[in-house]
Amino acid sequence: MNPAPTSAPIRTGADLLCESLLAQGVDHCFANPGTSEMHFVAALDRQPRMRCVLGLAEGVVTGAADGYARMAERPACTLLHTGPGLANGLANLHNARRAFTPVVNIVGDHATVHAPFDAPLAADIEGLALPMSNWVGRSAAAEGLGELAAEAVQQALAPPGRIATLILSADHSWSPATAQPPAARERPRAQVPDEHALAAAAAALRRPGAVLMIAGPALRDEGLNLAARVSATTGARLITQQANARVERGLGRVMIDRVPYVVDHALAKLADTRCLVLVGAKAPVGFFAYPGKPGSMLPAGCPVIVAAAPHEDGVAALRELAASCGAAPEAHRPLLASARDLPLPAGALNAAAVVRTVAALLPEDAIVCDESVSSGRDFFELSWHAARHDYLQLTGGAIGLGLPLATGAALAAPGRKVVTLQADGSAMYTLPALWTQARERLDIVTVIFSNRRYAILHGEYAQVGAGAPGANARRLFDLVDPELDWVALARGMGVVAERADSAERFNALFAAALKQAGPFLIEARI
Amino acid sequence: MNPAPTSAPIRTGADLLCESLLAQGVDHCFANPGTSEMHFVAALDRQPRMRCVLGLAEGVVTGAADGYARMAERPACTLLHTGPGLANGLANLHNARRAFTPVVNIVGDHATVHAPFDAPLAADIEGLALPMSNWVGRSAAAEGLGELAAEAVQQALAPPGRIATLILSADHSWSPATAQPPAARERPRAQVPDEHALAAAAAALRRPGAVLMIAGPALRDEGLNLAARVSATTGARLITQQANARVERGLGRVMIDRVPYVVDHALAKLADTRCLVLVGAKAPVGFFAYPGKPGSMLPAGCPVIVAAAPHEDGVAALRELAASCGAAPEAHRPLLASARDLPLPAGALNAAAVVRTVAALLPEDAIVCDESVSSGRDFFELSWHAARHDYLQLTGGAIGLGLPLATGAALAAPGRKVVTLQADGSAMYTLPALWTQARERLDIVTVIFSNRRYAILHGEYAQVGAGAPGANARRLFDLVDPELDWVALARGMGVVAERADSAERFNALFAAALKQAGPFLIEARI
Repeated sequence: MNPAPTSAPIRTGADLLCESLLAQGVDHCFANPGTSEMHFVAALDRQPRMRCVLGLAEGVVTGAADGYARMAERPACTLLHTGPGLANGLANLHNARRAFTPVVNIVGDHATVHAPFDAPLAADIEGLALPMSNWVGRSAAAEGLGELAAEAVQQALAPPGRIATLILSADHSWSPATAQPPAARERPRAQVPDEHALAAAAAALRRPGAVLMIAGPALRDEGLNLAARVSATTGARLITQQANARVERGLGRVMIDRVPYVVDHALAKLADTRCLVLVGAKAPVGFFAYPGKPGSMLPAGCPVIVAAAPHEDGVAALRELAASCGAAPEAHRPLLASARDLPLPAGALNAAAVVRTVAALLPEDAIVCDESVSSGRDFFELSWHAARHDYLQLTGGAIGLGLPLATGAALAAPGRKVVTLQADGSAMYTLPALWTQARERLDIVTVIFSNRRYAILHGEYAQVGAGAPGANARRLFDLVDPELDWVALARGMGVVAERADSAERFNALFAAALKQAGPFLIEARI
Repeated sequence: MNPAPTSAPIRTGADLLCESLLAQGVDHCFANPGTSEMHFVAALDRQPRMRCVLGLAEGVVTGAADGYARMAERPACTLLHTGPGLANGLANLHNARRAFTPVVNIVGDHATVHAPFDAPLAADIEGLALPMSNWVGRSAAAEGLGELAAEAVQQALAPPGRIATLILSADHSWSPATAQPPAARERPRAQVPDEHALAAAAAALRRPGAVLMIAGPALRDEGLNLAARVSATTGARLITQQANARVERGLGRVMIDRVPYVVDHALAKLADTRCLVLVGAKAPVGFFAYPGKPGSMLPAGCPVIVAAAPHEDGVAALRELAASCGAAPEAHRPLLASARDLPLPAGALNAAAVVRTVAALLPEDAIVCDESVSSGRDFFELSWHAARHDYLQLTGGAIGLGLPLATGAALAAPGRKVVTLQADGSAMYTLPALWTQARERLDIVTVIFSNRRYAILHGEYAQVGAGAPGANARRLFDLVDPELDWVALARGMGVVAERADSAERFNALFAAALKQAGPFLIEARI
């Protein structure tokens, strides 16, 4: 048999799709492909500009896309294999949706001609996509894939940031295409809020008991400084949401407080609120409902004024508010955190010791990804005193985000150290993210709060009034019998790992880990 | 402060739900609960008859429920935490749906009074459930939970076996309930197929080129023997689907062939088919579409006669067919596999050597869970010669089923050894299943086919015609740089593990593993 003649591959719809994504500025593809995506993979292979990052499960893929876009401020694309592949990625898309992160999902589907056969992997992809997507599109023909990809990117970038899911039929992917990709489109801009809303907000802020709650892009230096000036001028108290996609924190920055997670604490913190003004934030509600407790964290009847909705330009709104409140730049200094020498803890290791050490040793310009759930709650307050950093949180409550989020953030911000504060139970959801961190040589220090339990559920069970957990409840709450060996798990994925049983050992390991290139995991046994 | 008075806990809707599940024969709960499910956990705690099995991610939970019901022949329930928890379990529910496995999902939701607040975890649970469920119900009040649970179990048991998802609002779970749970309901029975369909099938089976394809419960001894007699009498060829939920295999049993996975092989195997008669089976289609290849694996125009649909009684249909075809019990011996001494392989370890050793050493009455994807395809044919066993496959193509499936099967069949044939890439999807195996002390031997790649994708890429994989494709197909250390990963979850680099070492390890109680993982480097 003669060798097959070598010829240039046909340009396919998948090639057009790739070219269009690149033209719109999307050059990272977090992927776990399957057979129906092979032509798209072939197209990726012809586009070395597209950085392809493999996640060994789709929760890693979508969580990394979230972390990437939070830091890069532009979307990555994901590549997911049919309905079940999308399904595996939905929980972290839920978190991304709640963070207003722009994400473009490319979900492969069977060829249209194959649909009538109801092949084993066939599923209702639109049905699966809709609950976690702001926009769902489906390919109609190979030639249309350039326009469709550009539209998906625009949809993802529509303020405040959205989940766009493009379903790609295999035959549209493999069919020839000659169309050129659309030119780069202008990024959709957030609108300045309505002046009447701003006027009402300005008036409200001067009233006793006014609270200014900001979120979204206003949690970066410019917005924080403006908000602090408005607060100082008007006397309105400044606060942010319990969870945020990204906050600029650390020494010299505005010390913004947040709403506590625990309902009783949140109610107490907001008890004196007479009026709430929102800039990019959502009025605070209980994370869960409890018998006999309110769902809103505000006092009954407290008016809420939306100065800027999440899809509007919160920084512009604060600029207007600062101007109309008479907050002169020189007259009103922002609330600045004072530097503080944090003594390193000693003795037994516990959650408080871990967060103190992290805050004390955190390098300048780090990125902190926090999925510490109940263990690391004290870090937020301590981080006022830490070196300047970006602080990224779990926004949607679907556990399993921390390790992927850090993976994506590190890819978006080379040269910056990423520190992940990670609960043990949540880490098990998307453990293979560690492998991606190893493969991509990412500078990530992961701190596992190894308390060997879903500690939050112990707390919640106590509130139920059923007494101490019995055999069945303990079997559902405790990660013991056997305990997880985090050092073995990390090393099994190619990540350097060590265990700390004392504060001194943790201090030494954390300092050493920060100096090392590549991923490093510390099992902090608390 | 005086201690709170101890009093009997109030009987809640969750208690009623638990009692009803138990009354309907559901006594295994695979769970990963959250705050909104705390009252249900408290109810479980008051019901020691309910065996609660924790999975450290929901893919483990739903996959284990599938494996349990395939062997127990009655459903387990799952306990999933709101929309994202359900989302994480959807891929293995997809597999269970394709296997016609009865599963009852209990998905916790926020309290109804909390719905207007759009709390962080809020999501469209019905929307997420519908694509992978045959029935979705929602609680309306605490007092109705007994009836609703009984209905969910009936829906799951409706032939051929279905996915029933019950959404449980937290306030219905925590509110008092006085209603008694309904009495045990009669299990829905599959109907005997229409006599005209059977008569048409009987006539068709006598024609030249007839093929009898059976699936579902007909793949157990009784159905297999009946089908073999029909085949011997009529001359119709006997075959089954490419993937099945459960087949009885091994020495002395009917040697039923199956449709190959690879399209060209499937087309070749069925090329002479002149008429296809289905008993509980689905006409064979390509797992994926390929340019220029057909979607149906049958010759063009080949008639298909449904003797029994999946929801009908396939064994009864075969009994009728055997009677009408004149297949006398004594006149037509089943096709019996002959005993064969398989020599153990020696030298380099490869996939063929692994499956030969597994087939040779398999203990009597084992359960084989096969998610070996491309590596273990030869096992099916070899298993004719192995000791008698049940053979459980991935039916829906959503990878990540093998480890959870084995977990559930072992819980349903104590005293029987479970052997999992597991591809490495797929195992990463639901790795925490190993921890559940360790905690529950399950007699499972897991063989990891460690080929350090998605081997199937290399094969599929070759078909695309894009030449050898380039840098981007290799980074998406190869599980290298770093390699996964399966021994470390398993030990990190508390599972005994060893590595085999040669056939001799694998033979020794597999023999030793079979003798040991509790889970054992062998990394077979092929």
